[in-house]
Amino acid sequence: MIEHFALGDKLAGLVGRLVDSYRADDRTHHINRIFVPNRREIIEIVELLLELAYPGYYGRQNLTTHNVGYHVGELLPKLAEKLHRQIDQCLCHERETRGNGDAAPSNGAKNPNQCTLAFLEEIPRIREQLAGDVQAAYDGDPAAVHTDEVILAYPGVLAVTVYRFAHALHAMGVPLMPRIMTEWAHTHTGVDIHPGATIGRNFFIDHATGVVIGETAEIGDNVKLYQGVTLGAMSFPKDERGQLIRGHKRHPTVEENVTIYANATILGGNTRVGRNGIINGSVFLTGSVPPDCTVSLSAPALTVRKRRPRKNRESEAVVDGPQE
Amino acid sequence: MIEHFALGDKLAGLVGRLVDSYRADDRTHHINRIFVPNRREIIEIVELLLELAYPGYYGRQNLTTHNVGYHVGELLPKLAEKLHRQIDQCLCHERETRGNGDAAPSNGAKNPNQCTLAFLEEIPRIREQLAGDVQAAYDGDPAAVHTDEVILAYPGVLAVTVYRFAHALHAMGVPLMPRIMTEWAHTHTGVDIHPGATIGRNFFIDHATGVVIGETAEIGDNVKLYQGVTLGAMSFPKDERGQLIRGHKRHPTVEENVTIYANATILGGNTRVGRNGIINGSVFLTGSVPPDCTVSLSAPALTVRKRRPRKNRESEAVVDGPQE
Amino acid sequence: MIEHFALGDKLAGLVGRLVDSYRADDRTHHINRIFVPNRREIIEIVELLLELAYPGYYGRQNLTTHNVGYHVGELLPKLAEKLHRQIDQCLCHERETRGNGDAAPSNGAKNPNQCTLAFLEEIPRIREQLAGDVQAAYDGDPAAVHTDEVILAYPGVLAVTVYRFAHALHAMGVPLMPRIMTEWAHTHTGVDIHPGATIGRNFFIDHATGVVIGETAEIGDNVKLYQGVTLGAMSFPKDERGQLIRGHKRHPTVEENVTIYANATILGGNTRVGRNGIINGSVFLTGSVPPDCTVSLSAPALTVRKRRPRKNRESEAVVDGPQE
Repeated sequence: MIEHFALGDKLAGLVGRLVDSYRADDRTHHINRIFVPNRREIIEIVELLLELAYPGYYGRQNLTTHNVGYHVGELLPKLAEKLHRQIDQCLCHERETRGNGDAAPSNGAKNPNQCTLAFLEEIPRIREQLAGDVQAAYDGDPAAVHTDEVILAYPGVLAVTVYRFAHALHAMGVPLMPRIMTEWAHTHTGVDIHPGATIGRNFFIDHATGVVIGETAEIGDNVKLYQGVTLGAMSFPKDERGQLIRGHKRHPTVEENVTIYANATILGGNTRVGRNGIINGSVFLTGSVPPDCTVSLSAPALTVRKRRPRKNRESEAVVDGPQE
Repeated sequence: MIEHFALGDKLAGLVGRLVDSYRADDRTHHINRIFVPNRREIIEIVELLLELAYPGYYGRQNLTTHNVGYHVGELLPKLAEKLHRQIDQCLCHERETRGNGDAAPSNGAKNPNQCTLAFLEEIPRIREQLAGDVQAAYDGDPAAVHTDEVILAYPGVLAVTVYRFAHALHAMGVPLMPRIMTEWAHTHTGVDIHPGATIGRNFFIDHATGVVIGETAEIGDNVKLYQGVTLGAMSFPKDERGQLIRGHKRHPTVEENVTIYANATILGGNTRVGRNGIINGSVFLTGSVPPDCTVSLSAPALTVRKRRPRKNRESEAVVDGPQE
Repeated sequence: MIEHFALGDKLAGLVGRLVDSYRADDRTHHINRIFVPNRREIIEIVELLLELAYPGYYGRQNLTTHNVGYHVGELLPKLAEKLHRQIDQCLCHERETRGNGDAAPSNGAKNPNQCTLAFLEEIPRIREQLAGDVQAAYDGDPAAVHTDEVILAYPGVLAVTVYRFAHALHAMGVPLMPRIMTEWAHTHTGVDIHPGATIGRNFFIDHATGVVIGETAEIGDNVKLYQGVTLGAMSFPKDERGQLIRGHKRHPTVEENVTIYANATILGGNTRVGRNGIINGSVFLTGSVPPDCTVSLSAPALTVRKRRPRKNRESEAVVDGPQE
């Protein structure tokens, strides 16, 4: 038997030293402060949105024309109440941390009631976009056997779905919550899309893991990305006090009908990939590309050395490069 | 107190508009359709398989020679029932979406009873392969302290384990479910192995995140991959109607005893890496390599500029390249 | 209705063959062995540590000066008991697998009581480091709006937090458990930091996914990494029996104030990036860099081909490279 372990007379001292450490630094505790979004409830909101966006796939199955109205009528008020509470927390948190901390909930310039209703009204429009994204995934992947498979299994579709909802909240000026939503998707898919990014219709990310799309990236219609693609920033200008300047365009623009293959890195707010462009795998790009261009790594950049088999030593022989 | 929020007289309109949006597009709802796999139950199947594959590590602990038979005898019927139900759903879904939607469950050409039994019979054979994969992980990583650590903590081993079970179902012609299984593993490990890929014995993926192995990739025995490696497709031929041609070989062949280091990208269905090959980190490869070769990035491809310290300005001095 | 499925008279045979397969290979079962860490309880330990590290963000909200002491006083004994049990299991596992399997729990050279207490005493010191990491994330990302957002949503901060706790246990010589903790974080964040790595103050990993930091890497203060960065090993020397030599320095040293941009790969135990260095995106580095240097891919390494629009055929025209 493993013996029982108790802290005994050490408990009081340990508690005291830990509570003292909370007092020592205001950045890493949330004590005596009223407003903070609740991540668990925000994840519940995401799950309800998935259930409403893709009825019959997420959550309850066996929906019919006859029962679907009751199903939606049961979910929507639940969603509305959670949404309202979290939007309220996020708006109040923003006011509190800007110094007017005594602001009561529910009375700000951005009104949580209005934001909640406006967001719910947007769900049908967002669903229309999602249908285009689902079709783009099926059309863009020869391994896809059915759009149902795309909805049930493709992480890129999940990441884009959560992004579209988060972006709608971000566009209304709701802080914190949109990022918590997209970071939930990031955890599940390996895709990091900042809710501030602008993304057109019929967007598909194949294989998903490692994709990063920055806050000020702009992406046109019918764009396809592969795993590991970064649309990132190149450098961050600082103000005269040495603080980062926040908010200016730091991430690339990708025009319509562009395809960007695996692990390509495209950086900079002035970088623009023209329409119909193809950026091949592993390309590192920090300047603009005109429309209708293919960008590739220049061959040959590889060295192939023949080793003596079995003994594992390098021989002198040099074999032609493997690039086609 | 945060005031209560209710949709009130707005509820009916919101429900109506959302239900209308379901009617407008058949791709993103599953209403009035009978057959759809249940992702939650498929994940339960994966968890039961892990518990049976690695007894004492996943699920119940303190197993002994005396109680292990009862433990397995309790788990197997649970697994069988779930497996049978989901295989049935997936086979019926396939028939339904191919146009013979009135097909009753359990009477198809591929029989769910037979598939379930055949799969259960395969578990001991798959476990034998997994022992080789576990040993390959221990042998291939100097940081591993014990095979127990490999089973308890290595994401590459988890991804390969789920792949081996999913591949067996895929080989029987069960649709959808194998991909949902491997995408569950993708979420947990960052490794995307299509269940259609063919992988030999003693396979190890170190560090795991970002690895993509496409549907038609073929991998020999004793292959080791590192994080971020892609075995991908290069381009997708389309038929005369502009639709992607599905099913032909699009992904590379990797022969036995090959090691592929971090973030290497290998593309194309005609690309073959010969036995005993070593593909070094960050290599981008679209052509074949003969046996016993090492492929590396050609040095020097880097520029090193000395900046004036503290003031952060670039100086004129150029330092020798950092490549060894 | 889907018919009920039962294994019937096939059950006994299936159970027998599976149990036989357990007997055939000792590496993939944990039967008749007493000591094994419990992953589920180790994850509960991680969750309690997050709740204590960031009170009011993780777990219970609405903490005040008046109730926080009771809150901590309730969590700490729970944490202590779980910690003690798992440390004990891990230490006994180590002794068992080293051949002195009859060693009773709780009486080894490394004492689980002492390890548990020493670890609990370290929490305030680790929290102090975490405050620096949180500030580094806010200071290093122009998209961050508040340190609260960083704690609630940034995967890089979560990965570093779990690493710092795991590293403290690793430094005391507790086996297995630290790696299970960091692999939990790996699953949630895509960041793989071995608990043996040494990392200085104010460490930030932006976008997180795909970062790998090996067991013997050493990182100074004020270092910033981006997604996809590998600090890895180059080759593994083997001893005369062909076994990997474990434990020597295989991973790079990164000095203070270094920034390493997306998808850079830095390999080798003798590789040292000097202080104030900047390693740009996609760089592949296997040699050392002096202080105050910027390392970049040499331009131009890209080919840009203009395709005839619409018809998608390549034209002869060559456009200037897109690199700035």
